[in-house]
Amino acid sequence: MSTMRRLSTTDPDFDAGLDGLLAWDSVSDDRVQQTVADIIRDLRTRGDAALLDYTTRFDRWTPACAADLEIPRARLETAWGRIPTAQREALETATARIRAYAEHQRLESWSYTEADGTLLGQQVTPLDRVGLYVPGGKAAYPSSVLMNAIPAKVAGVGELVMVVPTPDGELNELVLAAAHIAGTDRAFAVGGAQAVAALAFGTETIPGVDKIVGPGNIYVATAKRAVFGQVGIDMVAGPSEILVVCDGKTDPDWIAMDLFSQAEHDEDAQSILLSWDGAFLDRVAASIQRLLPSMERETIIATALRGRGAMIQARDLDDAIAVANRIAPEHLELSVEDPQAIVGRIRHAGAIFMGRYTAEAVGDYCAGPNHVLPTSRTARFSSPLGVYDFQKRSSLIMASAAGAAQLAETASVLARGEGLTAHARSAEFRGDAQSPAEPSVS
Amino acid sequence: MSTMRRLSTTDPDFDAGLDGLLAWDSVSDDRVQQTVADIIRDLRTRGDAALLDYTTRFDRWTPACAADLEIPRARLETAWGRIPTAQREALETATARIRAYAEHQRLESWSYTEADGTLLGQQVTPLDRVGLYVPGGKAAYPSSVLMNAIPAKVAGVGELVMVVPTPDGELNELVLAAAHIAGTDRAFAVGGAQAVAALAFGTETIPGVDKIVGPGNIYVATAKRAVFGQVGIDMVAGPSEILVVCDGKTDPDWIAMDLFSQAEHDEDAQSILLSWDGAFLDRVAASIQRLLPSMERETIIATALRGRGAMIQARDLDDAIAVANRIAPEHLELSVEDPQAIVGRIRHAGAIFMGRYTAEAVGDYCAGPNHVLPTSRTARFSSPLGVYDFQKRSSLIMASAAGAAQLAETASVLARGEGLTAHARSAEFRGDAQSPAEPSVS
Repeated sequence: MSTMRRLSTTDPDFDAGLDGLLAWDSVSDDRVQQTVADIIRDLRTRGDAALLDYTTRFDRWTPACAADLEIPRARLETAWGRIPTAQREALETATARIRAYAEHQRLESWSYTEADGTLLGQQVTPLDRVGLYVPGGKAAYPSSVLMNAIPAKVAGVGELVMVVPTPDGELNELVLAAAHIAGTDRAFAVGGAQAVAALAFGTETIPGVDKIVGPGNIYVATAKRAVFGQVGIDMVAGPSEILVVCDGKTDPDWIAMDLFSQAEHDEDAQSILLSWDGAFLDRVAASIQRLLPSMERETIIATALRGRGAMIQARDLDDAIAVANRIAPEHLELSVEDPQAIVGRIRHAGAIFMGRYTAEAVGDYCAGPNHVLPTSRTARFSSPLGVYDFQKRSSLIMASAAGAAQLAETASVLARGEGLTAHARSAEFRGDAQSPAEPSVS
Repeated sequence: MSTMRRLSTTDPDFDAGLDGLLAWDSVSDDRVQQTVADIIRDLRTRGDAALLDYTTRFDRWTPACAADLEIPRARLETAWGRIPTAQREALETATARIRAYAEHQRLESWSYTEADGTLLGQQVTPLDRVGLYVPGGKAAYPSSVLMNAIPAKVAGVGELVMVVPTPDGELNELVLAAAHIAGTDRAFAVGGAQAVAALAFGTETIPGVDKIVGPGNIYVATAKRAVFGQVGIDMVAGPSEILVVCDGKTDPDWIAMDLFSQAEHDEDAQSILLSWDGAFLDRVAASIQRLLPSMERETIIATALRGRGAMIQARDLDDAIAVANRIAPEHLELSVEDPQAIVGRIRHAGAIFMGRYTAEAVGDYCAGPNHVLPTSRTARFSSPLGVYDFQKRSSLIMASAAGAAQLAETASVLARGEGLTAHARSAEFRGDAQSPAEPSVS
């Protein structure tokens, strides 16, 4: 079958073949690195003036002054009124569902008191201000606005600042409408590495933020990496991927379309089908052949499937689960009779779509869970974007007088073992306090 | 007063002065970057052979073969038996307290089912394998082993792999004893950028891991940054800092010693005292003058206080809280009468030490909360190391037939709005299924 390569776990070189299939080098080249470093330095030096220059150069329009870069909240509301009713309803439904799911993720503060009166705990607080990068131009995704903005607002972030490039000054109504319903506080018509730098360091017009989230091209991703530390960032994503595990009993047209839905993102997107039913793989291949010519994005899909797609035949269910865990996919479809019986054996996946009725595509828009997910096998150690990414924790320690004396004994031994005697003496002062009921006052 | 600079929030140039005080540039120079890049490339190419070469070169000892790099678990147990009883008891107490606190941090899976039968949730799993870097030589910190290892074990990490350089082949008994009680699964006598590369990519002898945590020198930190993406890492830390907020009624000797305990870490460590009682700042300055000559690490402390320390006079409590939130310190001591009345107004801090009896030093060793904390103002967006750093989440979505039809309507509108028609059709297939009770089988 010509569209997708075929592997089998019984191939003697399967491991190497799988490694080759999954390999992805996300490093940006020296030229991009240098360009981004120059833009960041310029932004830090010249602020708004640099931002205006880059907007003229890259987006081909010239604001009269920096204040004109701001898209007023009234303009977001105008967009909300302008889009068709069906889109407005769909955004409302998606927003409500994403928010309901996010509410389950909110971290709460906790504390406990020990027998001697010492209190220990964790105080959870939202981030003060978050920047949301939204790509402009042809890849304008209102769903991305919802998925990034709603968890931040549910977390209680004080101010959510969106940046979106407007090539040739053109605004995308659906993106602005999504920003409106998602509760964006301020919006600016800037993009690229210069927008990331402006959010990280602040300019006269753009407020500096504590964390920057949202997708972008290689310049945006490189800039986010560069400002990491100055501000927090979400993960720098690789190409999107799906692994469909099927028992061979789902309609092959459905599975073919699921593979297409991933592949249509871009030429680097990865769609993999894994089954222990070889005849089923053939049937899906036939569906692909038949359905592909009818797809609007046929060329992109064909290129992605040919370049990065694969069908893998496993020996059995156990073998398939082992391969799935090795792939650690961003999206995992368990298109099987009883997904709940096996989901507990999935150790690594960004999101798991269970059962024949759960198309991955509903997760991209409206099921509730976030569509910002760990790619390129990073599900081994990272998680979907969530409310918890917009909250942080502070440890709480309040020693009672009796507790302080106890803790001082242990701390003193260990501090002296490390040669840190000021640590030891600082703890001992409290332990030695003569009048434990009354603090020693100077 | 000569040891620490003095600022006041009423100074006309206070903002600039504070910015200057807090500024820290953590960028490693090109030479370090290049050295680390070369080591990583070499490790990936030559594996164990490279690891042996670098161990000879940097640690000045030559193992007979790569297998000799492993420190057997029996050797850890031997160290446990060798250390003095007081140290063994202190390690036991610290371990029990760190574990008890960590148990409160464990994330649990959850799910809920909607009226139409659609299930949504989040499945929490531990990381498979974690690498723990422990510095060797003079800065050998057993407390660091406990603080990094215990949360990983509480999370349920399958295998915890420690690496520790042994300059001239010399092992540190206290570090090995800590590794024993903390439950380290395997240990290797390697260090530097080569150990980080070995953990990230694996060699014939060192197993590749999913995340690398633990402190290290500039080569280690640069290597961790370089392998980020291939594996997860904890935060790359700057110099340690403390901000003590005091109402002027704590023994000034205690406060002086708290400032010393931070400053003794290294010359770049930062100790700041903040009070609205100017006379108290003078009293602490006098305590510093008097106590400093008696300190074992007098020179380091004096250098740190002079170079990076400060006393800040605020107008009042509210002003002090505003300054504390702006500093977003790693360690915050609230040495005041009623810390619980104000802790809720602290928006950014790694750990908060409440009340006169809570020396920061007990938090470094045994209070329970982690001593791996966000430095350099990153508490604005990040958290202490915790069990949650060794767990990850997978979103769960299982649509019922009725739910799939509903979701398809919304997803279809939004997908078509974004020009992604394969997404739309993939969702619509489920929505249009003729027999919702029975999946359509080919």
